Amino acid sequence: MGLKFEISASSPEGGRRAALHLPHGTVQTPVFMPVGTAATVKTVQQETLERICSNGAGAEIILSNTYHLYLRPSHEVIRRAGGVHRFMAWPRPLLTDSGGFQVFSLAKLRKISDDGVEFRSHLDGSKHFFSPEHSIEVQIALGADIMMAFDECVETPATWERTQQSMGLTHAWAARSRQYWLDHRHEVPWHEQGEQGEQGTGNREQGTSASADPLSVPSSHMTPDPSSHQSLFGIVQGGMYPDLRRESAERLVEMDFEGYAIGGLAVGEPREVTREMIARTLEILPKDKPRYVMGVGYPDEIEEYARMGVDMMDCVLPTRAARHGLLFRAPEPGEELSAKENGEPASRTAVRMNIKRVEYAEDQRPIDPACSCLVCRRYSRAYLRHLFVAKEPLGLTLNSIHNLSFYLDTMSRVRAGLAG
Amino acid sequence: MGLKFEISASSPEGGRRAALHLPHGTVQTPVFMPVGTAATVKTVQQETLERICSNGAGAEIILSNTYHLYLRPSHEVIRRAGGVHRFMAWPRPLLTDSGGFQVFSLAKLRKISDDGVEFRSHLDGSKHFFSPEHSIEVQIALGADIMMAFDECVETPATWERTQQSMGLTHAWAARSRQYWLDHRHEVPWHEQGEQGEQGTGNREQGTSASADPLSVPSSHMTPDPSSHQSLFGIVQGGMYPDLRRESAERLVEMDFEGYAIGGLAVGEPREVTREMIARTLEILPKDKPRYVMGVGYPDEIEEYARMGVDMMDCVLPTRAARHGLLFRAPEPGEELSAKENGEPASRTAVRMNIKRVEYAEDQRPIDPACSCLVCRRYSRAYLRHLFVAKEPLGLTLNSIHNLSFYLDTMSRVRAGLAG
Repeated sequence: MGLKFEISASSPEGGRRAALHLPHGTVQTPVFMPVGTAATVKTVQQETLERICSNGAGAEIILSNTYHLYLRPSHEVIRRAGGVHRFMAWPRPLLTDSGGFQVFSLAKLRKISDDGVEFRSHLDGSKHFFSPEHSIEVQIALGADIMMAFDECVETPATWERTQQSMGLTHAWAARSRQYWLDHRHEVPWHEQGEQGEQGTGNREQGTSASADPLSVPSSHMTPDPSSHQSLFGIVQGGMYPDLRRESAERLVEMDFEGYAIGGLAVGEPREVTREMIARTLEILPKDKPRYVMGVGYPDEIEEYARMGVDMMDCVLPTRAARHGLLFRAPEPGEELSAKENGEPASRTAVRMNIKRVEYAEDQRPIDPACSCLVCRRYSRAYLRHLFVAKEPLGLTLNSIHNLSFYLDTMSRVRAGLAG
Repeated sequence: MGLKFEISASSPEGGRRAALHLPHGTVQTPVFMPVGTAATVKTVQQETLERICSNGAGAEIILSNTYHLYLRPSHEVIRRAGGVHRFMAWPRPLLTDSGGFQVFSLAKLRKISDDGVEFRSHLDGSKHFFSPEHSIEVQIALGADIMMAFDECVETPATWERTQQSMGLTHAWAARSRQYWLDHRHEVPWHEQGEQGEQGTGNREQGTSASADPLSVPSSHMTPDPSSHQSLFGIVQGGMYPDLRRESAERLVEMDFEGYAIGGLAVGEPREVTREMIARTLEILPKDKPRYVMGVGYPDEIEEYARMGVDMMDCVLPTRAARHGLLFRAPEPGEELSAKENGEPASRTAVRMNIKRVEYAEDQRPIDPACSCLVCRRYSRAYLRHLFVAKEPLGLTLNSIHNLSFYLDTMSRVRAGLAG
C-alpha cells in the first residue's frame, strides 16, 4: 500500500474534503505543507510544528528538498540514519520533491541531455548528474511518504515550441521515474529497521536516560507497516499554454500515478493565468486521486485553489516572509480594502504587516487579535518588532510560527467549509 | 516586601539550599540564571525556557542586560509596556544588571567622573550618560525583581592602588544607588497596571481570540502583590586583592543591601584566584542573605561555587558556546580524564563536544545519553551536526536548549546534594 485517498465531501466548485492515508500517518486535505528544505522548517522546532495550529493541532505533512539533502548531508548519510523521518525526528508524513526545480533554479552550469542534467553544486561548485533514475534513487534513500517524478522546469517566459519540447522531456522522464520506482521501491530504508526501531525507542519515548544505546528518535511511528511503500506523483507541465497543459495531464494520467502535481506555476505569471492553468488541468486529472499544486502561494491563493479542488500545496512564503518581517493576519472590520500595499495584489483574506515599522514599536496587541496561535496568545507586536530590529533570532522563529499557523488555520477553515 | 530568603539546609563546606521568594515567584537556590540580554535568551522561546530542564521544570529566573535594553528599545518603551516581564511575556522572576559592566566592556569613548560615566552607544555612536541614579531609574522602569547597584569595573590586570581607587568609587555609587532606590522604588511599572492586568489576561490565558483588546501577556503572575517592590543588591569589587575584597564586602554590608553580588571575577584570572576571591568574600557576607557571583562559568565552576555557598550565578557561556557548536555533556565511564582539550582546563563534570566535527556526521546517539532534555530525547548528534554545518538556525536553538538544560540540571543535582 502506498496511499489511500478517501473523499468525504465535495463542493459544487470542485473542492473536496478528504483523508490521505500515508505510511507515516493520515493527512486531512486540502492541506498546506510547510517547507523543510534541509530537513528543518527553518527556525521552527519539530515539537512546535506538531502543535502549531491555533487549535493545538500540528502540521500533518511537511516537504523536504531532495536537491539540498542530496548535496548536504547526502542521501547516503540519511539512508544510513534510517531515512529523513528518523534523521530529523519527524514521525509524521513527509514529501520530497524531485530536485528538478532546484537544479534548474539554484545550481550552476547546467548541461541538459535526454539522459538527465549535469550541474554544479551551488555550495561548492562540485559536479553532479541527476537523471530520473538517480532522482528516484535519492528519494528512495530519503524515504519520504511521497516522492515526485523528475521533471524539467522550462524557463519563463518560453515559446510554445520550447515549452512543448521541454514537456516531452518531462513525460519521458516521468515514465523512467515510474519504472525505477516500481523496480526499487522495496529499497526504502524503513524496510531495514524493524529491529533497530524496537531497540531504543521505548527509552527515548519515556524520557528516561538511555545509556550509550544508539538514539532511536521518538516513536514507533518511525517504523511504518512493512507492507507499505512510498508513493510517486507525476508532474504536469506545459507552461502557460492550455493545450500543452491538457496534453501533459493526459499523458501523465495514462502512466497511472498515485497522485498528480501541477508544476511550473507561480513563476511570475499573472494570477489569472495561474488560476486558468490550474482549472484546465484539474478538468483532466482523475477525481479520485490527490492533486497537488507546487510552490503556491499567498493565503488567499491557497484558499482559492483549495476551493477549486486542489488537495495539496506547499510554499516557502510563510517562512521566508517571516524571516523578512512580513506577517499575515486576518483583516479587521473595514480593513479589507486597505491591504493593497506596495503595489502587490490586494488580499481578501490576509493583511500583510511589516513588523519592522515604527508604528508597532509600542503596539501591545498581538499580531492578529483573531488568532490564538502560540505567538498571538503570548507576545505583542511591540516585542516582535523589538526582536526583529535587534536582529534577535527568536524574532524569526516567532514570526515563522505565526505565519505557518496562519496558513494552516486558513486550510483548516477551508476544510470546515467543505465538510458540508 | 522585596525578597525573602529561606535556607532549608546547609553543608559543612558552606553550601546552602534555599528558597528565594520574589515578587514574580519563588526561586530554588543555588540557581543558575540564563542570560536574556535583549529581553530574549538568544534563540530560545519563553515556552521552552519554562520547561527546559530534564525533569520538565523550567528556568525559575533569568537575567536581562540594562545597557542593551536602555539603548534598544529603551527603558521608556519597556516602562510603558508595563516592565520587562510583560514586554517579553516572561511571568517568572527576572534580574537586571546595572549596565556598568557593559558600559565598561562594550561602549566606546568612555569618560568617567565621580558623578558617572559618559559613553557612546556601540550601536550607533550616540552619546549617553549613566550615573548610579540613572542606572537605578532605568532598572526601575524595567521592573525586574532584582536590580544591581551601579559599579565601576576596573580593567584587568590593575594595580592595588588603581583597584582601591575604583573600589572607592563603586562604594560611593552603591550608596547613591541605594538612596535612589529607597526614594523611587514605588515607581516600578507593576504598580500602575492593576486594571490593565485584569482586562485582557483572562482572554489570552484561555487561548480564545481577544478581538481588538490590547494584548495582556500571559498571566496573573504578571501583576505581583502591590505591596511588593524590587530588591537591590550591592556589588563587591576589589579585583584580585584579598584585603580589598574584604574591605569592599565590609563596606557594602554596612550599607545593608537585600543581597550581595561578587563582581569583577572571571575576567581572565586563573581559576584558583577566582575561587580564593569568592571564598574570602563569602566569609564576610551575611549568611542569611543571597550571594551572587556574576558572570561564571563552566559547568564544573558553577557546581564548585554553589557547594562553597554561592546562591546565584549567571553566564552567557551555555548559550554563546551553543551558538559556536560547543556542547556540554556528562562524561561516560573512563572518559573523565580525556576532557582536557584545546589546552583548556579539564572538567570533572562536563565533557565539551564540538558538534561540527566530522566524527559526529553519522553518530545516531543523542548529545548526552545520560540527559533527558527535550533535545536529547529527540535529536541525534548526526542531525545536530547537519544543522550546524548547513547553518540552519534550528541548530543554534537546539544547541542552546541542551546546554541550558545541562546547566540547570547541574544545579538541580547540586541542590539535591545539599538538601541533606
